[in-house]
Amino acid sequence: MTYQEAIEQIYRSTKKLKEKGKPAAYIPELSQIDPSKFGVHICPLKEPSFGIGDYQTRFSIQSIAKVFSLSLAYKLKGEKIWERVGVEPSGTKFNSLVQLESDNGIPRNPFINAGALVIADILVSGLKNPKAELLEFVKSMSPSDNISYSPVVEASEKSVGYRNVALCNFLKSLGNIENQPEEVLDFYFTLCSLETDCQTLSSLFLPLAYDGIAPHSNEKIIPNSYSKRINAIMQTCGFYDESGEFAFRVGLPGKSGVGGGIAAVHPDKYSIAVWSPGLNTKGNSYKGMKFLEEFTTLTELSIF
Amino acid sequence: MTYQEAIEQIYRSTKKLKEKGKPAAYIPELSQIDPSKFGVHICPLKEPSFGIGDYQTRFSIQSIAKVFSLSLAYKLKGEKIWERVGVEPSGTKFNSLVQLESDNGIPRNPFINAGALVIADILVSGLKNPKAELLEFVKSMSPSDNISYSPVVEASEKSVGYRNVALCNFLKSLGNIENQPEEVLDFYFTLCSLETDCQTLSSLFLPLAYDGIAPHSNEKIIPNSYSKRINAIMQTCGFYDESGEFAFRVGLPGKSGVGGGIAAVHPDKYSIAVWSPGLNTKGNSYKGMKFLEEFTTLTELSIF
Amino acid sequence: MTYQEAIEQIYRSTKKLKEKGKPAAYIPELSQIDPSKFGVHICPLKEPSFGIGDYQTRFSIQSIAKVFSLSLAYKLKGEKIWERVGVEPSGTKFNSLVQLESDNGIPRNPFINAGALVIADILVSGLKNPKAELLEFVKSMSPSDNISYSPVVEASEKSVGYRNVALCNFLKSLGNIENQPEEVLDFYFTLCSLETDCQTLSSLFLPLAYDGIAPHSNEKIIPNSYSKRINAIMQTCGFYDESGEFAFRVGLPGKSGVGGGIAAVHPDKYSIAVWSPGLNTKGNSYKGMKFLEEFTTLTELSIF
Amino acid sequence: MTYQEAIEQIYRSTKKLKEKGKPAAYIPELSQIDPSKFGVHICPLKEPSFGIGDYQTRFSIQSIAKVFSLSLAYKLKGEKIWERVGVEPSGTKFNSLVQLESDNGIPRNPFINAGALVIADILVSGLKNPKAELLEFVKSMSPSDNISYSPVVEASEKSVGYRNVALCNFLKSLGNIENQPEEVLDFYFTLCSLETDCQTLSSLFLPLAYDGIAPHSNEKIIPNSYSKRINAIMQTCGFYDESGEFAFRVGLPGKSGVGGGIAAVHPDKYSIAVWSPGLNTKGNSYKGMKFLEEFTTLTELSIF
Repeated sequence: MTYQEAIEQIYRSTKKLKEKGKPAAYIPELSQIDPSKFGVHICPLKEPSFGIGDYQTRFSIQSIAKVFSLSLAYKLKGEKIWERVGVEPSGTKFNSLVQLESDNGIPRNPFINAGALVIADILVSGLKNPKAELLEFVKSMSPSDNISYSPVVEASEKSVGYRNVALCNFLKSLGNIENQPEEVLDFYFTLCSLETDCQTLSSLFLPLAYDGIAPHSNEKIIPNSYSKRINAIMQTCGFYDESGEFAFRVGLPGKSGVGGGIAAVHPDKYSIAVWSPGLNTKGNSYKGMKFLEEFTTLTELSIF
Repeated sequence: MTYQEAIEQIYRSTKKLKEKGKPAAYIPELSQIDPSKFGVHICPLKEPSFGIGDYQTRFSIQSIAKVFSLSLAYKLKGEKIWERVGVEPSGTKFNSLVQLESDNGIPRNPFINAGALVIADILVSGLKNPKAELLEFVKSMSPSDNISYSPVVEASEKSVGYRNVALCNFLKSLGNIENQPEEVLDFYFTLCSLETDCQTLSSLFLPLAYDGIAPHSNEKIIPNSYSKRINAIMQTCGFYDESGEFAFRVGLPGKSGVGGGIAAVHPDKYSIAVWSPGLNTKGNSYKGMKFLEEFTTLTELSIF
Repeated sequence: MTYQEAIEQIYRSTKKLKEKGKPAAYIPELSQIDPSKFGVHICPLKEPSFGIGDYQTRFSIQSIAKVFSLSLAYKLKGEKIWERVGVEPSGTKFNSLVQLESDNGIPRNPFINAGALVIADILVSGLKNPKAELLEFVKSMSPSDNISYSPVVEASEKSVGYRNVALCNFLKSLGNIENQPEEVLDFYFTLCSLETDCQTLSSLFLPLAYDGIAPHSNEKIIPNSYSKRINAIMQTCGFYDESGEFAFRVGLPGKSGVGGGIAAVHPDKYSIAVWSPGLNTKGNSYKGMKFLEEFTTLTELSIF
Repeated sequence: MTYQEAIEQIYRSTKKLKEKGKPAAYIPELSQIDPSKFGVHICPLKEPSFGIGDYQTRFSIQSIAKVFSLSLAYKLKGEKIWERVGVEPSGTKFNSLVQLESDNGIPRNPFINAGALVIADILVSGLKNPKAELLEFVKSMSPSDNISYSPVVEASEKSVGYRNVALCNFLKSLGNIENQPEEVLDFYFTLCSLETDCQTLSSLFLPLAYDGIAPHSNEKIIPNSYSKRINAIMQTCGFYDESGEFAFRVGLPGKSGVGGGIAAVHPDKYSIAVWSPGLNTKGNSYKGMKFLEEFTTLTELSIF
């Protein structure tokens, strides 16, 4: 069975599921998305790419963008970034302030909000024009340039982002933010507003399945060892408080966003992006999780 | 470079490291081990097995035994066991009582002590003679039967095991232990007293690298999907509060014990066991971690 | 208005309240008490004693007994006891294990279960016959000797006391229990089984209102400064996670038990005991709290 | 022995103590205070007022001001304020974010920073000109008007107040702040910048010792029951994580500030203010605590 055949079969059965979760309600802009949207796109290394459903409709990738900011900060600063953020699963909600207090301001990993804010601070310190340079870096990973910031989503997030303001100021009080919180938050909210479609998103993750190389240009985006380590962090920390569940059921490194997107990679085999806006109770795409679980079961290909 | 060549080279350089951690001090029996012991044994699926150093010296495998009790409970009861224990990393120390309170008595995963006690309770309920049947199950995985319980270690642990007594009674008070705590604890302390050497230990993990099949007998020990899922849990939860670090540096599913042993698998490729009694500050074998990090770096073979 | 008049008036109005809480359900023996029982008895220093309702019916005083064990341990060992237990409110449930972990085994105060277990350990170490000597000490405070241990209640508590077993073993593992947990728990469960009636209970608290002196014998039970300090601890910690509420509404130092009893003192004025088995959601007597709130409001006599 | 004699004697012995704590370092402006400053002033209801040492030197009263904002909010809104803030001791640091998360945004009491921010929000909502009206209310309690905001201290606090910004935004995200965080924080920082001397401060607390009445004007500042309840909260929550210790050693309702001031009351007897900038490890005035402990011991007058 080819990837395409497996995807077609599972897409049909998953599409029919009555239960489909609920779109994120806390950001006004996201709550208005049509919950019946559902798209999948795969970029295999040795087979043709393939997409189905709404795979060319743009959506807000939200926290998936944290993989890009981490990659760029890692590339810029090397292993020194791990002095300011850990690589351990958090065991608590993605936006928890509790652990920070006991961990003296070192966020558990770069994918919880606190960790992503520290990574944002590193980029604000290290780049002249953080927003433009991050976007340029992202675009270098893929032949497509169908990705951009959404001022509307950014404004929507800022209007209700009190908890992130709290997190960033808390980190500042604990000594783990160098810049003014306003500046870091501005970059962070912009980062999380990135929009693209499944087709582009899966291509953006392909370097992580290919030892850090972007196949379309043969350019080394990040070193091989960085690529492996980012995959390891995605495996243990990529799905908020459901990372273990995702490893257990799907068995691939990946990252989800509250916009309903999930990007995952099977090293040396493929990258894949799924989008369905309805979320389960842990904040991950309901149908996206189901689809990927069926996919690795049917193809008998998880990394385990 | 063959596995043997890589192991020989890294064994020599790791052996020379001055820093070697400290043997576990909390159990009287373990604190007396010679900290210079160091052994490695690999069981590749397609190459000959190979051992080096003290790979035929028996040691206390401690928490590594939790992989065996989990496997047997999973085999016995199927997916129902996940109603009583989770699959998420804990984010706290291996013997923490804190999280239990907020999680209503459902331990985060089967490898923290609380979770292993629930698994022990399941086996005490489900087996006529839990100790004998568990040992029989373990022996079915390997051609070697060089593994047994150590009454001395068991007695040593019982003499200081107040925290585990606390955990088990706490779980009982929260309704997640069916049997009397004394009975569950007795089985648990016996389980953790299992002794074997690297050679046997690596062979006992081979079914987890081979879709649940024991190659020496071609017997299906556990279903393929169970094997993959146990690997996923080892990946996210196998190294206490250092599981993310192990995924990050080594990139293999594995399980450590405070006796200084580590067993790990590369699915479809090999199983490996390392033993060096000195522990790092997180309770994992100092040289064992170093060795495996170098090994997957040199062979460029992590699952990521 | 005399105390008697105030008590008669408030007893009648409180008796009529439909809402009356629920008797403690976790101890089989306590759950069978008639929830309509309601008694009050006051021992003023300068007016005659007075009782109303079921003030001569015996009930299980439970945690109120912790005031007696604390008084005896304080008398025996002096200020040294504060090296092993604090005097701060806990901010968490009475039987929480969480705080102990962050406080390195020093319970916040002697009235949470953990603290009472440490006090029990001090008495087990310091007395030849702890149960008999504690009872003798208690009886010295009052002209009545209508107080005794209840083997039935003790057995009932032991049959379900897993959480206290957990707490005591946890404290032992943290180094703050000298004796074997079984021995400490045996004394603790016996202590909590003390039974008496409101008449005797109020007389037992009179020394705390009278600078440590038992008026009937003029004997100095404990030094004046100890008496003041025990009152201070009752004020800040006597009502589990509702201590602030009791100070706020009633404004007297006091101690409650899950048997539905409350004993309180107004220094230099009176001691009072109330009993109604129905508990509010925080585990304190529903009608007892109401009665005392009305009483200090009507007499305009709180310590504040 | 008169209050004056007791104060003179204890002032001399406490003044000599070599240990004197360290002034608060986290606010630049406070860290520059001369640590040898030491003043005391008492306002008895039935004896003449008396001051000693630096009792007429102004200092930053910091958190002591929270008693005034609470009094005014309580007067304005009555018992409804307790829907938004509790009356229980917190058991954690004064600026902890942890408890808020588990308590769903209802701060434990009005004296931890989170609770004071909620009270500030109530005043910002309920007053036309919060800063001016609060100051007017404060001045009505005392014949002296020697109290004012310090723009320098306010600016100093704002420059490092990241944790309070975090707290306020966190409360907003949890739904317990009505106004924009910036507005609430601006009022809060101004409130905490209040400056006065021991003479005025003790007179400002006299109504709390006199059933809510300001003796100089015979004006009812707040109802008697409010006064008693504010005293109860000061007793259980007035000294951060050392409230139990203060009740235990001193035995009076009171409130401390990181400027080194302490104000306390003995209901129906006196109000007293002490100032010494050096703080103990819990953030309370080292010599202030010592002085008051000696004072209630020597006069044998605590509320217990």
